[in-house]
Amino acid sequence: MPQQRSEETRARILDAAVRRFAISGYNAASVDDICAEAGVSKGAFYHHFPTKQGIFLALLEGWLKTVDHGLESLRQPTVPDTFIRMTQLLPAIFAAADDRLPMFLEFWTQASRDEKVWAATIAPYRHYRRHFARLIQDGITEGSIKETVDPQAAAQVILSLAVGLFLQGVLDPQGAEWQKIAEQSIQVLLNGLAK
Amino acid sequence: MPQQRSEETRARILDAAVRRFAISGYNAASVDDICAEAGVSKGAFYHHFPTKQGIFLALLEGWLKTVDHGLESLRQPTVPDTFIRMTQLLPAIFAAADDRLPMFLEFWTQASRDEKVWAATIAPYRHYRRHFARLIQDGITEGSIKETVDPQAAAQVILSLAVGLFLQGVLDPQGAEWQKIAEQSIQVLLNGLAK
Repeated sequence: MPQQRSEETRARILDAAVRRFAISGYNAASVDDICAEAGVSKGAFYHHFPTKQGIFLALLEGWLKTVDHGLESLRQPTVPDTFIRMTQLLPAIFAAADDRLPMFLEFWTQASRDEKVWAATIAPYRHYRRHFARLIQDGITEGSIKETVDPQAAAQVILSLAVGLFLQGVLDPQGAEWQKIAEQSIQVLLNGLAK
Repeated sequence: MPQQRSEETRARILDAAVRRFAISGYNAASVDDICAEAGVSKGAFYHHFPTKQGIFLALLEGWLKTVDHGLESLRQPTVPDTFIRMTQLLPAIFAAADDRLPMFLEFWTQASRDEKVWAATIAPYRHYRRHFARLIQDGITEGSIKETVDPQAAAQVILSLAVGLFLQGVLDPQGAEWQKIAEQSIQVLLNGLAK
């Protein structure tokens, strides 16, 4: 089954890249390192990925799909409940991001220098802003969120909060009970947004 | 005036390091590069800084002092007004951080790998959490913030929001009017916190 073997090889390269990026950083990890770690030839590598940056983009995409899938699966009867349920997703997000975190930070560093990486970083963030704005609008429609709330502004607050919690949780995992803090944060926000 | 000349040299090294870090990144920029950029000898460099990391820590410290100074100077008659005033500090913070942003991201990357850098990164963040918690407590005392608000939790929300806004503003400066968004965000929060 060559198709299946090819996908296995791709997955093995991605796993190896995560480990190499975590150990020596994105810049220092070479394609040779990743091939050695994965036990594949450079030919196999370039069959799957045009560049090292291509791996980076594939890892980001895979991780964002996990988040999207999680977000879809947690819709609750009301929008405020959906937001509270969302905070319960955090441990899974943190676990999925765990050994990739130094890499994400380097990704953001790259993003500030590289047009293509920048576009890939900004796209999902705008995607989440739209997602949250729709959710807030749904809340206004169903009558659980005040009509005076501006969906775009509220979505931006939620997104900023999510990004901030994520970065802090990454930098200081033992510094606080992040899930509890996320729940409290959403509760403080809902006090201002909900009817 | 050797004292003054020494301080000028130190400042020149710091400026040169900011430029080198911005251009080639913290890891790739060598002490030699920084000395060449600053037009100083390696002896002069090591007179002022034990290591390249020492420069990094000095830059972080200088930048945090700017923020602290700004925070102190904007106290208003009431705590909600102080928070709104705070958002007006953002353009200055962004300007001070401007060419240092890729560097800060790399700093966070380093922080996830290096105990000493980690401690230096986490210390100010806990310092700001205390600062905000005291401010919320002052608001409860003066009667502008609800007694039911937990100062620690509210401080954490504000800090997460600030970190998130900062990171987004850094990554996507043209993507939104960040000061306006910060004002709206604080307004949404105050709706939940203020009496």
